[in-house]
Amino acid sequence: MSAFDALMAFQRDTEALGQIAGRLGWDQETVMPRGAAAQRGEEMAAIDAVLHARRCDPRVGEWLEAASPPDAAGQAQLREIRRAFERATKVPAALSRRIAQVTSEAQGKWAAARADENVAAFLPVLEEVVALKREEGAALAAGGNVYDAMVQDYEPGTSGAAIGAIFDAMRPRLVALRAAVLERPAPAALKGAFDTSAQMRLARQLARVFGYDMNRGRLDKAVHPFSSGSGADVRITTRTSPTDPFNCLYSTIHETGHAGYEQAVDPAYALTPLGCGASMGVHESQSRIYENQIGRGRAFAGWLYGRMREAFGDFGIADADAFHATLNRVHAGFIRTEADEVQYNLHIMLRFDLERALMAGDLGTNDLEAAWNDRFAADFGQEVDRPSNGCLQDVHWSVGLFGYFPTYALGNVYAGCLYRALCAAVPDLDAQLERGDTSGATGWLRDNLQRHGRRYAPRETIERACGTAPSEGPLLDYLEAKFGALYGL
Amino acid sequence: MSAFDALMAFQRDTEALGQIAGRLGWDQETVMPRGAAAQRGEEMAAIDAVLHARRCDPRVGEWLEAASPPDAAGQAQLREIRRAFERATKVPAALSRRIAQVTSEAQGKWAAARADENVAAFLPVLEEVVALKREEGAALAAGGNVYDAMVQDYEPGTSGAAIGAIFDAMRPRLVALRAAVLERPAPAALKGAFDTSAQMRLARQLARVFGYDMNRGRLDKAVHPFSSGSGADVRITTRTSPTDPFNCLYSTIHETGHAGYEQAVDPAYALTPLGCGASMGVHESQSRIYENQIGRGRAFAGWLYGRMREAFGDFGIADADAFHATLNRVHAGFIRTEADEVQYNLHIMLRFDLERALMAGDLGTNDLEAAWNDRFAADFGQEVDRPSNGCLQDVHWSVGLFGYFPTYALGNVYAGCLYRALCAAVPDLDAQLERGDTSGATGWLRDNLQRHGRRYAPRETIERACGTAPSEGPLLDYLEAKFGALYGL
Repeated sequence: MSAFDALMAFQRDTEALGQIAGRLGWDQETVMPRGAAAQRGEEMAAIDAVLHARRCDPRVGEWLEAASPPDAAGQAQLREIRRAFERATKVPAALSRRIAQVTSEAQGKWAAARADENVAAFLPVLEEVVALKREEGAALAAGGNVYDAMVQDYEPGTSGAAIGAIFDAMRPRLVALRAAVLERPAPAALKGAFDTSAQMRLARQLARVFGYDMNRGRLDKAVHPFSSGSGADVRITTRTSPTDPFNCLYSTIHETGHAGYEQAVDPAYALTPLGCGASMGVHESQSRIYENQIGRGRAFAGWLYGRMREAFGDFGIADADAFHATLNRVHAGFIRTEADEVQYNLHIMLRFDLERALMAGDLGTNDLEAAWNDRFAADFGQEVDRPSNGCLQDVHWSVGLFGYFPTYALGNVYAGCLYRALCAAVPDLDAQLERGDTSGATGWLRDNLQRHGRRYAPRETIERACGTAPSEGPLLDYLEAKFGALYGL
Repeated sequence: MSAFDALMAFQRDTEALGQIAGRLGWDQETVMPRGAAAQRGEEMAAIDAVLHARRCDPRVGEWLEAASPPDAAGQAQLREIRRAFERATKVPAALSRRIAQVTSEAQGKWAAARADENVAAFLPVLEEVVALKREEGAALAAGGNVYDAMVQDYEPGTSGAAIGAIFDAMRPRLVALRAAVLERPAPAALKGAFDTSAQMRLARQLARVFGYDMNRGRLDKAVHPFSSGSGADVRITTRTSPTDPFNCLYSTIHETGHAGYEQAVDPAYALTPLGCGASMGVHESQSRIYENQIGRGRAFAGWLYGRMREAFGDFGIADADAFHATLNRVHAGFIRTEADEVQYNLHIMLRFDLERALMAGDLGTNDLEAAWNDRFAADFGQEVDRPSNGCLQDVHWSVGLFGYFPTYALGNVYAGCLYRALCAAVPDLDAQLERGDTSGATGWLRDNLQRHGRRYAPRETIERACGTAPSEGPLLDYLEAKFGALYGL
């Protein structure tokens, strides 16, 4: 067996074990008995240790040295295996273990501090997490920029500076758009109660409408919506609230974007490093274009209004135009996960600048709350009223996810580029969406982006689909046009 | 770290990975999307390979040599680790792989042959399975008896000869009891349709009544009822048929016997080789005593009759005595899994003698069908009408499970012994069961047997609970008394 074949066979088992670990995560969030939590922790640690040992296995280094890839796809496989191998071997095992311990502890302390509105109770453990992650980042960077090294885990090939340049170009236009929209009268909010079983039936219909293959997946309820798995077993979750059916329905559409991407990857890449989405940012572009550009567009909103009338009867919204306005209602708020398209990216930029400063050592954890609140007042024109509405609202930093936040906004930027290209490629897109037919959109995304999986670097993945390099322009033009029309600006 | 501690730490991760593999099996039978089957096969193979490598790891041999157990429980841990290590290292890896391949293929061919009523189509692959299993048995036996070596996988410490002696003592009394019962008029069978949702609600109630802890388990539907997992995550399944509520309810009670056993093992043994049931036979004794001696006894039947009237209204059975008779209805039939208490063990004895002869080389696969049919006619007084009612009815041999069948009957024998001891220990047992209170029975079984897990050898496990060595007498006395009364013999 050639070194390349031996490496790929070894990697295939590693990928299969990774799928198993992911499925345990799904199990834990959906069907696991509550009393099994402690035992599950030991099970997860055992399979994580197996995966870590395989990723650092010295034979992988030897195979990588000796392997000659048979073609360009093989070369891309080696690129991904090498990245994971270097990632795993650069960080000392003792440091990885310490990070796992401290972040596990920190997550609990963060949850308690958030519940108690007590930033001070969280700071000591956050300080420890920051120090450990900076140490890890330094090991990964090997003399280079620490934050850039971290970003590679989520969006390979980009840098803090490159992201910063995009965000700097976006911020003034978004701040201005937000201010203009909020000066105008807001459309009506949804009112009343919506049967949760009917919500789940409609959610199932929406998943199918967006091309989700239930034969290779399933939809369940969970506390937090997520998509899990690759290849032939990609499961999604959503949640229901009797007063907020959009939460259930648009979480489903969002997760269908992620899951449909995984399901559409070329089966030839199954159980290989190329058999999944290209990056967090590209992944988010798929969930966002499904959810926002398509799902919250006027054409699809008209179709969905009809389905909601069938499911819930008269729910107090007079017609499809009013429904579209309600669906895109912008209102001042503190919470990122509840933010609309206009404000969402501003939440991300705030976090990006703060976490970059934390990692660079330019911001201490003791100054984090003040820095957050100052920046929030500047961008959102509001004073943060309590920590759970401010710097304690997200779990990410407690679990050591530095470099992850910007991929949410990059996903929106990519979605903007893709939507422009999609509209050009499918001239009757809106006519299709008015009938609840997403096949033009999902088919174009599958053919031009999703099927490639991780074959190309994230930036190249977007470029190949759009024909041009990604930039913030299309997203901003789209947002200004859409919300300008909705709010009569 | 001492050799013993190092070995136990290594083993703990192996046990955790074993739990994960088991949970994948549960997932496959309950919630897995149909289209995921092929990928799941690769995932299972990957984790099986990890488990096999750990069981054969040369360090385990070194640790076993150097380890000094701190106490008797530690000694029992070493006993179990040594058995698994020797089992794994005695069989050449190539032979294990070949058996996995051929049995996987054979299972499909068996299913097709059974559907087509075509024994000849199954024989070539069965011949191959038999040859491979004899080779494996010879490797395990290392000069000793091949069948005895196989039995150790399921019931350590016993032998074909010991089992044969028990079965020989049972057979004439069971054949005579069967003949006498079938000469008498049969009680009414259950008729009508029973709402399957109501069946599942009652199944859930029954699981709780028999002490199943839903906080560390869950009940789902599956094609075949089973119990899966150990420690804090032990899940059970049942199935529903609108015309046969007993299938759903008594499968639930049966699996609750298995699962309750796993849940009752001393938590100090969790994720160690002692943290599960002592053997297949002892396991079956727990499911059988719940299902038969308790669940189909007159006292509990009276309580269940009331619950069924509540759930289904008048279902055509006049009173609790008639219900008890229906519940214990004996009728001639070909299928082991549908057999009643009187006939079940006769089905096992037939298989035991045939598989022992196959493994000894005294019976060729070409003569299997004739041997089966002759024996069936002798013990059951009926000619087998088609292979799916005869030698093609069970999956076991196709997947290489030789030495497994006798543990079903051993479980019944053990249940007979335990029931005698239980009745002596809990004088008001029937008064409790009439109220639907199983706590006297389940409490006695937990304290005297279940909590020990695999701490003692199977035979010793039964002896410690009963105070005497296991024998077939109590079971036969119980059956003759119960069915003698029911059928007026």
